[in-house]
Amino acid sequence: MPKARLEALVDGIFAIAMTILVLEVKVPIIPNGRSPEELLVALQKDWLTIGAYFISFAFLGMFWVWHHRIAVKIKELDGVLLACSLFFLSLVSFFPFVAGVFGHYPANPITLAIYFPTMGLLLFSQIAFFRLAMLRGKLWEDLTPEMARIIHRKNLKGFVFFLLGILPGVLRIGMISALVVVMIGLATVVAYRRV
Amino acid sequence: MPKARLEALVDGIFAIAMTILVLEVKVPIIPNGRSPEELLVALQKDWLTIGAYFISFAFLGMFWVWHHRIAVKIKELDGVLLACSLFFLSLVSFFPFVAGVFGHYPANPITLAIYFPTMGLLLFSQIAFFRLAMLRGKLWEDLTPEMARIIHRKNLKGFVFFLLGILPGVLRIGMISALVVVMIGLATVVAYRRV
Amino acid sequence: MPKARLEALVDGIFAIAMTILVLEVKVPIIPNGRSPEELLVALQKDWLTIGAYFISFAFLGMFWVWHHRIAVKIKELDGVLLACSLFFLSLVSFFPFVAGVFGHYPANPITLAIYFPTMGLLLFSQIAFFRLAMLRGKLWEDLTPEMARIIHRKNLKGFVFFLLGILPGVLRIGMISALVVVMIGLATVVAYRRV
Amino acid sequence: MPKARLEALVDGIFAIAMTILVLEVKVPIIPNGRSPEELLVALQKDWLTIGAYFISFAFLGMFWVWHHRIAVKIKELDGVLLACSLFFLSLVSFFPFVAGVFGHYPANPITLAIYFPTMGLLLFSQIAFFRLAMLRGKLWEDLTPEMARIIHRKNLKGFVFFLLGILPGVLRIGMISALVVVMIGLATVVAYRRV
Repeated sequence: MPKARLEALVDGIFAIAMTILVLEVKVPIIPNGRSPEELLVALQKDWLTIGAYFISFAFLGMFWVWHHRIAVKIKELDGVLLACSLFFLSLVSFFPFVAGVFGHYPANPITLAIYFPTMGLLLFSQIAFFRLAMLRGKLWEDLTPEMARIIHRKNLKGFVFFLLGILPGVLRIGMISALVVVMIGLATVVAYRRV
Repeated sequence: MPKARLEALVDGIFAIAMTILVLEVKVPIIPNGRSPEELLVALQKDWLTIGAYFISFAFLGMFWVWHHRIAVKIKELDGVLLACSLFFLSLVSFFPFVAGVFGHYPANPITLAIYFPTMGLLLFSQIAFFRLAMLRGKLWEDLTPEMARIIHRKNLKGFVFFLLGILPGVLRIGMISALVVVMIGLATVVAYRRV
Repeated sequence: MPKARLEALVDGIFAIAMTILVLEVKVPIIPNGRSPEELLVALQKDWLTIGAYFISFAFLGMFWVWHHRIAVKIKELDGVLLACSLFFLSLVSFFPFVAGVFGHYPANPITLAIYFPTMGLLLFSQIAFFRLAMLRGKLWEDLTPEMARIIHRKNLKGFVFFLLGILPGVLRIGMISALVVVMIGLATVVAYRRV
Repeated sequence: MPKARLEALVDGIFAIAMTILVLEVKVPIIPNGRSPEELLVALQKDWLTIGAYFISFAFLGMFWVWHHRIAVKIKELDGVLLACSLFFLSLVSFFPFVAGVFGHYPANPITLAIYFPTMGLLLFSQIAFFRLAMLRGKLWEDLTPEMARIIHRKNLKGFVFFLLGILPGVLRIGMISALVVVMIGLATVVAYRRV
């Protein structure tokens, strides 16, 4: 499986996920179409989803940039790396639904219980993608093992910061969720030490 | 018609079909947006469609990998191979509807009566694509006729296993459907013997 | 404007238009989700839109093949050819709506009054694209003027056959429409003679 | 980040934004599907959205051409140029919503209060993209500083003409909006003088 094909699928799925985010922002229906006041009031309910649209677009943009930064370091794909990429892409495609829930219920703790795991799995699948490429010898030769280790440690550090950042939000979902996050964080720290 | 153009269309259609699968997962509408209990209950109806989303994404991902594995073996396209590819793509694009029916009515036998033929035709169009390329001399020269035959036999064997796998489900649709599947299976075995 | 960029946009727009055709085929809502009879009855209303889906997909596939057959003969693009391509693409993107009307109201003459002009303009924009490339000297040098003329005449002949083919349908819309079609046909014959 | 990846994302997002514009044009629901009169009346409400579709498609097409004209002049991307491109793309993806509001409420001043800022930001992000590439030394060497300056001035001049063109429309929104537009215009003139 040539890498160029996967890159084309990645660009396609990101382009579509980023564009169908906007389908969550609905054109409001008002009885008197010529009244500026009515349209303004109706659109005010949309501000939240419009904000969620731009935030989600920025997140997907960042994931896209990050994915390609990792992908250029990889020489070739095998079945495991391909499966890992497809799992990552299934989460990217799932993002418009998550963004839709966020835009509708930003103040609801359950929204965070969907948002955080999706983000966490997106980050995890990328970190795993690079780590698996390291372990399976699929990185370009000009990337020394030492450099690869530094990148992997940076990825893990970023993941711990992500977990710390979401902790206050996770506490709103419940104590058990917070405990799970803390334990994932500790496991990441252990993995960091061992690299 | 250069092969690169078809590959671009294939990647595009797969990317879109994989992404619009998520449009079947609807953001639930609840009266009290701030209530975690209501949102949780409302989302529980979505678990099934979310599961169907990830399963369908995985299926499309597998078909995408399989298509490119076959396509790299083909040297050039003629009208017949192009028509066969477009038929394959029309089924890929159709998949979000099939996945939608599956997500809504997983326990309904009629769902299987839509799901199995679509899957079967997808498999069949891919097997036919490779077989037609064999017969029309459109495979790369470094692929010996013997190797091509082995690949084709592997494809046919996979198809028979697929038919065996769906048989219990097909019996739920009705006796005539099961008979049709058995007859297709026998025809495949005959074709397998003759290659 | 490099030709590769336009090709990428063309492939993208075709891929999306071909895939969102399926959004017209709605998953039916039935009260008792486990009843095969109810689902079967509900799906029977979908057969027409499913048929319209596959027909429209085939049409778009044919236009895609035809476009690339013409595009490979063109050396470079200028503003006029670019505008002509974008007009063509705006009709391709418009096709899912036309297919939707067709799927809902196949027996309604007004459907034909939308379907035929869209098809006609699609054909016309492609023929004009090639003719303009001829007149503006944008064809590859290995295509002799004589060969270019033969292709253009073939395009015009195809257009006359299209007009003859739709004439019975156009008569159902009204006499004036039929008269317009006849006049367009005569103009095409005149253009054919003068090439 | 190789430029080819961004170009692929740009083409993908434009292709999708241009195609999902048509989702705003809804197939009308009429009680008697065989009645030409009813369908004609029902479709008459669609003319406006169909017109908005073709106008918006043309606008996006123009932005696409303009983007690639600028992008070919750029040698490589850094973080700032990438962020600027993603901001531009987030507005392109947002356009189908804006076009939807326009198609529904063309006579409502609030529509203009959404349409003009989106268009203005699209233009601004493109002008800023080129200007930033100039300042950061990311243009191709064969483009002399003098030529780059001329292009930038042309961009700024075009922006002033855009502001003059929308002024009558902005006056319908309110005096403060008009004042803001005049001040942006003056700032642009000052920037033009200083280049």
